[in-house]
Amino acid sequence: MAQLKNDVTENIMTDQDLKINNERLWQSLMEMAKIGATEKGGVCRLCMTDLDQQGRELLLQWSAELGCTHECDAVGNLFIRQPGKNNSRAPVMTGSHLDSQPTGGRFDGVYGVLAGLEVLRTLHDHGVVTDAPLELVVWNNEEGSRFSPPMMGSGVFTEIFDLDWAYQIEDENGVSVKQELDRLGWIGRPMSQRDVDSYFEAHIEQGPVLENANQTIGIVSGGQGQRWFELNVYGQEAHAGPTPMPLRKDALVCAAEMVQLVNQLGHDHAPDACATCGILKIIPGSRNVIPGHVWITIDTRHPEDEVLLVIEQQLRDGLASIAEKHGCSFELENFWISPATPFDRNCVELVREGAELNGYPCREMISGAGHDAVYMARRYPVGMIFVPCENGISHNEIENADPADIAAGCQVLLHAMTARAGY
Amino acid sequence: MAQLKNDVTENIMTDQDLKINNERLWQSLMEMAKIGATEKGGVCRLCMTDLDQQGRELLLQWSAELGCTHECDAVGNLFIRQPGKNNSRAPVMTGSHLDSQPTGGRFDGVYGVLAGLEVLRTLHDHGVVTDAPLELVVWNNEEGSRFSPPMMGSGVFTEIFDLDWAYQIEDENGVSVKQELDRLGWIGRPMSQRDVDSYFEAHIEQGPVLENANQTIGIVSGGQGQRWFELNVYGQEAHAGPTPMPLRKDALVCAAEMVQLVNQLGHDHAPDACATCGILKIIPGSRNVIPGHVWITIDTRHPEDEVLLVIEQQLRDGLASIAEKHGCSFELENFWISPATPFDRNCVELVREGAELNGYPCREMISGAGHDAVYMARRYPVGMIFVPCENGISHNEIENADPADIAAGCQVLLHAMTARAGY
Repeated sequence: MAQLKNDVTENIMTDQDLKINNERLWQSLMEMAKIGATEKGGVCRLCMTDLDQQGRELLLQWSAELGCTHECDAVGNLFIRQPGKNNSRAPVMTGSHLDSQPTGGRFDGVYGVLAGLEVLRTLHDHGVVTDAPLELVVWNNEEGSRFSPPMMGSGVFTEIFDLDWAYQIEDENGVSVKQELDRLGWIGRPMSQRDVDSYFEAHIEQGPVLENANQTIGIVSGGQGQRWFELNVYGQEAHAGPTPMPLRKDALVCAAEMVQLVNQLGHDHAPDACATCGILKIIPGSRNVIPGHVWITIDTRHPEDEVLLVIEQQLRDGLASIAEKHGCSFELENFWISPATPFDRNCVELVREGAELNGYPCREMISGAGHDAVYMARRYPVGMIFVPCENGISHNEIENADPADIAAGCQVLLHAMTARAGY
Repeated sequence: MAQLKNDVTENIMTDQDLKINNERLWQSLMEMAKIGATEKGGVCRLCMTDLDQQGRELLLQWSAELGCTHECDAVGNLFIRQPGKNNSRAPVMTGSHLDSQPTGGRFDGVYGVLAGLEVLRTLHDHGVVTDAPLELVVWNNEEGSRFSPPMMGSGVFTEIFDLDWAYQIEDENGVSVKQELDRLGWIGRPMSQRDVDSYFEAHIEQGPVLENANQTIGIVSGGQGQRWFELNVYGQEAHAGPTPMPLRKDALVCAAEMVQLVNQLGHDHAPDACATCGILKIIPGSRNVIPGHVWITIDTRHPEDEVLLVIEQQLRDGLASIAEKHGCSFELENFWISPATPFDRNCVELVREGAELNGYPCREMISGAGHDAVYMARRYPVGMIFVPCENGISHNEIENADPADIAAGCQVLLHAMTARAGY
């Protein structure tokens, strides 16, 4: 730690002078939350709707006051630019998303965007111009609620997704991404070949770890690897009355033990593994019929792909043993694989410095959820800052956060960005 | 046993002369199976359809050849009467149902009806007139597939169901029972106050017990008591990525242990208890969301109501302990209760005699499924005869049975009915 602090001595002094405006950040969040506000205190601002457009217009009105320019790329990502002293340098980026879940909250995504705005505002207040240019990006369609998959904008920017493939994706009313982009005038030049110095994103944790540990800042060191499966369990469908217990091949009783195996594997690979059965269906399912077929989804996550492979092997072995015991059979298929994505160590350390310089209790942690930052990390140096959210609840209208934590995350973001951009 | 045989010495001699016609019984079953035959070799003859009517017409054509009369009661049960020597005596009845499941088989129900017909035919062949009159009854709507609940006809006959309540029940197209009864001309005088000497029903077992034990005749001693429940399990819905294993309240993991408890309670009260979770739903259920709410149906059965109450108490205690361990809560509600229905011992023993006199391997057993006989047993002396079905499979187009077993059950039925009616 001591050595690290020495490495950034040049920033320590200036950092102490650049304090973000806590109240302004909070008020901006509350102002933005009016656009698509729901009765229960949440937000419904679905991607590429008129409400999503209104959110962008409010943001552009604020950023215009700082003299920023802006443009969209070909998939509707919005880049707001604050020139630096040396504009031949690649930009230091920050951002997140303004679209929400159908019953979303006031912080998921929008916090990262408005924290970025507050950084620009604070620098503007103090007349500070960074060496590298800064960019605030609003990724299009992070949530994936209206147009699946999620993280579409950052996925196209990093060439994980093909642009033309994204264009033809339709919502449930048959309206395509391309149609909506045209309607909103959000199509600019393709930018996926751009050079980017680094990308930082502030986000609510969407989990309970920081709150439980009474800590303010999560220093995100990477995105978890994910391996998702579909499991079919086959027994023998039979009448629940005339079929004695010893003669049954009850697919649900077998599946119940498999659900517990999945859960146990998560615990066995503590502290970083997660293993979840999210959907379980009995096919067809009737009160007085012994289940003959059960379908289950399994979601396993870990920061190291090697550990995920170990978990998969233990899962397959355990399932075989359980199925045999119950006289059932099973099929386990890989459904989706996303590799572990460690973040750039320099960016991670800049986030740590920002927290420590300001005296915020912090911990290094993995991002369990997907984020635009995780896609960006596949191509660029990335750092990410988590702040606690109340009871770890997100994707919910009751999503909430403490103004002091919200401010702290923004202050750390300012440190990391200015340290990277220089001034 | 020896003593029992002595008690019926008077029937032993005559019984040996009255052999049913195996081939005729089988051919009649195959002939009836053409009405509503499905491509996969099963039957779709839904209650109160034109096909159901055609089935009755074929039966009435056959019974008319024996000189039988017939009439319907107010709910469309069809009674085919063969007078006895002493028609002031209450009739000895047999029967079952001609309606089928949508994808039903060739034996469920129809076997009991045509076995009864074969008894009448055999007596007719031999010029035997019983002392008491005999009646062959076709219960209306046993399956409950088109009009719920099942066993409607026998339920109204035994006043378990109210006639006017049954009349207004509609199928999924809004057609009522009363409308269909009027259309088919199936409405006669109410008969629920009739005196009945006894009722015997032959049926395929619809379970695997006889086949597994290599036995031919199941001497049914009663209907199981049933206690059905609905269980709600509440945990904490959360994102499957950012929520570490130790901080979860996973309602599905909790529910999985509860499913195993239900299964264990069935085994603990062997050999007669059955305990089944037939439906399990995660609300709402998503691949990457830790389940917060699970709904489960539970079906418990046992021949003794007292044991069912013990099982319920053990279930409630076990659920509380499991819920506490997982940090979840639960609600268990009684959904439906049907009391245990022991059959009349004299009737049961007549079935046993019929099996033993003919040298059929047999065992006493409980009816796990509901049958018209179980409703009849609430008011009248009842005996029931099970024969094996292939792999215990029923309510399925591949339902099958061995012609020799089919004949054996009919021979036992003949013994029980003639022993009861006298001749």
